[in-house]
Amino acid sequence: MAQVSAGAQERTTMAEAPPFFGARFSLYPMTERYVPIILEAIKGLRDTGLEVETDDVSTFLGGDRDRVFLELGRVFAAAARTGEHVAMTVLLSHGCPGETYCEATGEVRVPRAAASPSGKTGITASCQWSLYPLGVPGYMDVIYREIDRTRRAGVLARGAHFVSALSGDLSDVLRALRASFDAACVDAGHVVAHATFSANSPTGRPS
Amino acid sequence: MAQVSAGAQERTTMAEAPPFFGARFSLYPMTERYVPIILEAIKGLRDTGLEVETDDVSTFLGGDRDRVFLELGRVFAAAARTGEHVAMTVLLSHGCPGETYCEATGEVRVPRAAASPSGKTGITASCQWSLYPLGVPGYMDVIYREIDRTRRAGVLARGAHFVSALSGDLSDVLRALRASFDAACVDAGHVVAHATFSANSPTGRPS
Repeated sequence: MAQVSAGAQERTTMAEAPPFFGARFSLYPMTERYVPIILEAIKGLRDTGLEVETDDVSTFLGGDRDRVFLELGRVFAAAARTGEHVAMTVLLSHGCPGETYCEATGEVRVPRAAASPSGKTGITASCQWSLYPLGVPGYMDVIYREIDRTRRAGVLARGAHFVSALSGDLSDVLRALRASFDAACVDAGHVVAHATFSANSPTGRPS
Repeated sequence: MAQVSAGAQERTTMAEAPPFFGARFSLYPMTERYVPIILEAIKGLRDTGLEVETDDVSTFLGGDRDRVFLELGRVFAAAARTGEHVAMTVLLSHGCPGETYCEATGEVRVPRAAASPSGKTGITASCQWSLYPLGVPGYMDVIYREIDRTRRAGVLARGAHFVSALSGDLSDVLRALRASFDAACVDAGHVVAHATFSANSPTGRPS
């Protein structure tokens, strides 16, 4: 099946853009001002052409892959630039259409190459993430290979129980995470990743 | 292989308690007072006999399954009782020993039955969770079956893209989540779940 054409890159809707891709994120500013910080960070999200659904726990973004990653980075950067300690959790999902019930077919649909914005955000992010290629027996080999990709990208900080720790400029971390996620989609029709981003943590700050 | 004996229930260490089980959690109180609230909530965690490792993004708990779930509930309840809007993310992992590299063997090791504390916490929790039985082709059937188990437990609020939304007293939600997670461990040697808990959210509050 043909991938989405280059012309459909902007304002792609779900229906036009198989493989089904989306993210679910939550933003946590550790301050009483969390409501205005969140509202400011997500401003404009509904004008991106993405499907956006917000509830009391998280926000779903569906649609164009480049745009979803762009918005995730933009939202976290906006919150982190307040200087407050902020965390953001992200669930990435490829190949799982359906709402209450996932209609994953197992069919492998390779994502098209990422638009590669260079440049830095100036925000140092700590990240812990886990990758789950589903329904395939060789999933651990895929995971090891993709951990190694983050090492070569220069953002792997360390391994730990259940997660890989990444560290670096937010844009480098997001780019590496996407490269690993997309590469795993070549090996499994349904791939999920969970990532937690943190900035301005007093724990990581030199005292 | 024999499961851990009943006598080892308290203060079980990792080495004594196959299948390897652990959790990684992060607590997010949305207030400037997040540091004292977190410190108060996790007080005593190092006296539980669990392996505890904290970094700038999350805290790892390894060891006795009953104790891990007990502590997750206790920590979130303590933070929620401050009345602040708090969220907690939890990664549960069964059958994945190893640190930098998971040494999952795929061998199915059925967890022993949960100690079932009854009683309520009085805390209404919203939860979104996802279940990942890894390395098995029939994983979606397991997931559907376990979503249905939460429905029968009376805590399923709704399905959404990529997650199931649960709602109810924190203890009921945690009990249902564990029942589903443990049941999935009968079908796959390596099972992971991610859950986000939220309490006192202004979004869910009647205005």
